[in-house]
Amino acid sequence: MATYDELAGHSIERLAALSDGIFGVAMTLLLLELHVPPHETITSEGALVHALSAMAPQLIVYLMSFMTLGIFWVGQQTQLSHLSRSDRHLTWIHLVFLFAITLMPFSTRLLAEFVAFRTALLAYWLNIVLLGGLLFASWRRAKGTGFIVASLSEDAQAAICRRIVFAQALYAFAASLCVFTTTCSIIVLVLIQLTYAIAPSFGRVRTRPATPTAPPPA
Amino acid sequence: MATYDELAGHSIERLAALSDGIFGVAMTLLLLELHVPPHETITSEGALVHALSAMAPQLIVYLMSFMTLGIFWVGQQTQLSHLSRSDRHLTWIHLVFLFAITLMPFSTRLLAEFVAFRTALLAYWLNIVLLGGLLFASWRRAKGTGFIVASLSEDAQAAICRRIVFAQALYAFAASLCVFTTTCSIIVLVLIQLTYAIAPSFGRVRTRPATPTAPPPA
Amino acid sequence: MATYDELAGHSIERLAALSDGIFGVAMTLLLLELHVPPHETITSEGALVHALSAMAPQLIVYLMSFMTLGIFWVGQQTQLSHLSRSDRHLTWIHLVFLFAITLMPFSTRLLAEFVAFRTALLAYWLNIVLLGGLLFASWRRAKGTGFIVASLSEDAQAAICRRIVFAQALYAFAASLCVFTTTCSIIVLVLIQLTYAIAPSFGRVRTRPATPTAPPPA
Amino acid sequence: MATYDELAGHSIERLAALSDGIFGVAMTLLLLELHVPPHETITSEGALVHALSAMAPQLIVYLMSFMTLGIFWVGQQTQLSHLSRSDRHLTWIHLVFLFAITLMPFSTRLLAEFVAFRTALLAYWLNIVLLGGLLFASWRRAKGTGFIVASLSEDAQAAICRRIVFAQALYAFAASLCVFTTTCSIIVLVLIQLTYAIAPSFGRVRTRPATPTAPPPA
Repeated sequence: MATYDELAGHSIERLAALSDGIFGVAMTLLLLELHVPPHETITSEGALVHALSAMAPQLIVYLMSFMTLGIFWVGQQTQLSHLSRSDRHLTWIHLVFLFAITLMPFSTRLLAEFVAFRTALLAYWLNIVLLGGLLFASWRRAKGTGFIVASLSEDAQAAICRRIVFAQALYAFAASLCVFTTTCSIIVLVLIQLTYAIAPSFGRVRTRPATPTAPPPA
Repeated sequence: MATYDELAGHSIERLAALSDGIFGVAMTLLLLELHVPPHETITSEGALVHALSAMAPQLIVYLMSFMTLGIFWVGQQTQLSHLSRSDRHLTWIHLVFLFAITLMPFSTRLLAEFVAFRTALLAYWLNIVLLGGLLFASWRRAKGTGFIVASLSEDAQAAICRRIVFAQALYAFAASLCVFTTTCSIIVLVLIQLTYAIAPSFGRVRTRPATPTAPPPA
Repeated sequence: MATYDELAGHSIERLAALSDGIFGVAMTLLLLELHVPPHETITSEGALVHALSAMAPQLIVYLMSFMTLGIFWVGQQTQLSHLSRSDRHLTWIHLVFLFAITLMPFSTRLLAEFVAFRTALLAYWLNIVLLGGLLFASWRRAKGTGFIVASLSEDAQAAICRRIVFAQALYAFAASLCVFTTTCSIIVLVLIQLTYAIAPSFGRVRTRPATPTAPPPA
Repeated sequence: MATYDELAGHSIERLAALSDGIFGVAMTLLLLELHVPPHETITSEGALVHALSAMAPQLIVYLMSFMTLGIFWVGQQTQLSHLSRSDRHLTWIHLVFLFAITLMPFSTRLLAEFVAFRTALLAYWLNIVLLGGLLFASWRRAKGTGFIVASLSEDAQAAICRRIVFAQALYAFAASLCVFTTTCSIIVLVLIQLTYAIAPSFGRVRTRPATPTAPPPA
């Protein structure tokens, strides 16, 4: 009687393809709300430069959200590329994860519009917590069901969990700074994300100085 | 003379890729209409919390539609992953299925806007009936043409049909409750979908309590 | 010196993936302009039914455009699945083809808005001519460069060309009927597309009555 | 301790899929702002023809942007198809590249709206510089880490770098022409892009006149 559930949702490839579609649309839609200044208010080059400069804070929020989506895309890809297969429950954890991804353009617009409101910042942070929690649940489920490829060492498996928890602790710290000002939180959030996107490079060079450019084994 | 029709539309891979693209866009567009409250009406944190809370019913309709799309995505994936190939007619059944998927954001906005109108609820339900009917037709066609992979047992093949019919019966029951109120229908629809997304897990644990986490054979 | 051009644009897989992305977005965006009736004008179930019925002509134009996109998606897929590789020029023919695909939502909105204007109908038809012409050019180029897989017979190769020319002749006939009324053109266009999407099934049954459901060789 | 970074972001396939998704959405969204003329202002066929003709300059800007996206899509594809794998840093270079791609619809709308403003033209050009710079950085990183497939000769590797630098020099020249008028810059930009999209064909015929249609080795 439970046959359908055993047949459904096995394909990692299609889950990856749907995820790439949703991430691709969400990443592009982020900037859809970045409107060109209305033509009738712009009468000179100077006015246009000024209008574009006034959009800089908005652009930083969009860049931050793009980095957030990029970080979670890399995180999800890393998980999926180490799974041998999926089942319905793991697939549904990822579908809810993708729902949280589609919420991101809304959270981003909310924060871009209400940049000084703690409510907007906390809503944005809750979105990040939801994303991290679902990736964590996905890895736990994959571990419990034995879907993780055998070639991945216990140590490496633990590293993926540790990473999520550590990142969420940093995000929570950044969000808590909004008791002072939301600007403070946003600056720390951007710094955390830049660290995730760029900094590990220095870390790696330091820990393996002899062969900094050698590729890890494929 | 009929050569073109024999050449066209064979690729399951491209049908899957187009489907993932359309599902990805439709799932992300669902929330595009979730507008940030207008800035000029919000003067305090309390007002923003209040404005966001007022969006909760809308958010539930979007979540329900995301689950609907997720359920039909899993359903279509399950079919496609058990087909050896396609032909033009099967491809066109899926193209019409995808057209019904692109109608979903419209049906969802209609229901979110007219949540107390039976007409909106029935339009939403008709969209679900169309999706289920096309998946059913697809499986019949695949059976008739011998495109189903040989490794799938007769029993498993029947399970896929049974699942569609059973789900549609539940949806029809939920829709019929709108003779009382549409709220009643929506609550039952959400419960059905949560059951499809979450509950089978309990079912499986109950029927195979000895090895609840053992993976089904790949 | 010409090395870059020899390196670039070889991948059929990525061309197919980009095409599926663009078709997926274009197919979903078609309906983005299908707006829910404004809430303040609707005071009863009857008014909502009436408002939705009034959208039927628009919906037919969208359905026609979805079928057009579906027909050209199947046509392009059929070509790409019979190519062993690509080069920069073939890739660029397909990029221009995809540009014409992105014009389709505009042409469709134009026709849906100005359904009685010959200019709108001819603009729509020109879009179809452009699509057909580019698919024709693509096949000619593939033939000239020897990119067509060896397993495809000369007869089958000719069938792909013949199909494009025949379909374009029918579309031109339908468009020419706008000297009477545009409604006449639209009806014939829809009938042609229904024939391409559905009717070949009867044709095949007629030509091979003994084994109507036997699969063609994979 | 650095294990996560060694596990993450290896997949070229998923990077390609995300890129195809983002390029697909960006290419289709370019034209989303091409609005149908408002119905109430159009009372005759002549008025509609006139209104559509008035959109020609806008359409040229959109076509130019589509070609820009096409050129960079081919450029990125050429790189990715010659890499054996990726790592987190290379993946992040491409994620920033994709962010610059999502900026393109905004830059395009800005230029379409302010076609006579140097600020708009320079913003558009900066977007192109950013795209070229990131592709250059990607190739340098891939060379440094040894991710380039062994089958690609040193000569061919250099051709890919040379191509980027040469194209950027031409773009900078075109942008500099805006000291005269922006129209001048736009015409030269379109000519450069047409050359990249079409002209190499003549170049190849000239350098290898004996076998103009012979396929390069797969």
